[in-house]
Amino acid sequence: MDNAKIYVTYKESILDPQGEAIKTALHRLNYENVKAVTVGKYFEIKIEDHGQNIEEQVRKMSDELLANINMETYRFEISRIEED
Amino acid sequence: MDNAKIYVTYKESILDPQGEAIKTALHRLNYENVKAVTVGKYFEIKIEDHGQNIEEQVRKMSDELLANINMETYRFEISRIEED
Repeated sequence: MDNAKIYVTYKESILDPQGEAIKTALHRLNYENVKAVTVGKYFEIKIEDHGQNIEEQVRKMSDELLANINMETYRFEISRIEED
Repeated sequence: MDNAKIYVTYKESILDPQGEAIKTALHRLNYENVKAVTVGKYFEIKIEDHGQNIEEQVRKMSDELLANINMETYRFEISRIEED
């Protein structure tokens, strides 16, 4: 079993209104030293390993479903879960 | 300047309907070896360092605004950004 952690964020050129709103809210709570906020999605996926290329599978799943590749970018980490 | 990466996910005991929906969608796309999907939020926050306790500030911001501590749990990493 493998565990994939996938982080999806907006591309640099895309406006992130949710991030801006959170920055404003943090300033209102007196955290005025907050200079920038980016919001993204985080997925943790447990994948059964049948000898396939897990990295390629995670990339495909991200491109097809998890990220909107027009507006978003992603990175991922894969770790192995030891089975009993 | 510090960079905080905060990951917010549902607590273990809380049903994650979005994760279940994504698992179903991945199965429909023929990724049947996907066994579990957890969905969360990911925040990246740039914080000016005025000598305050950054870790404590990030914990407070998470408790007050970023996470719903009744249903969600979070973890974070802080790294220093070198200034020019």
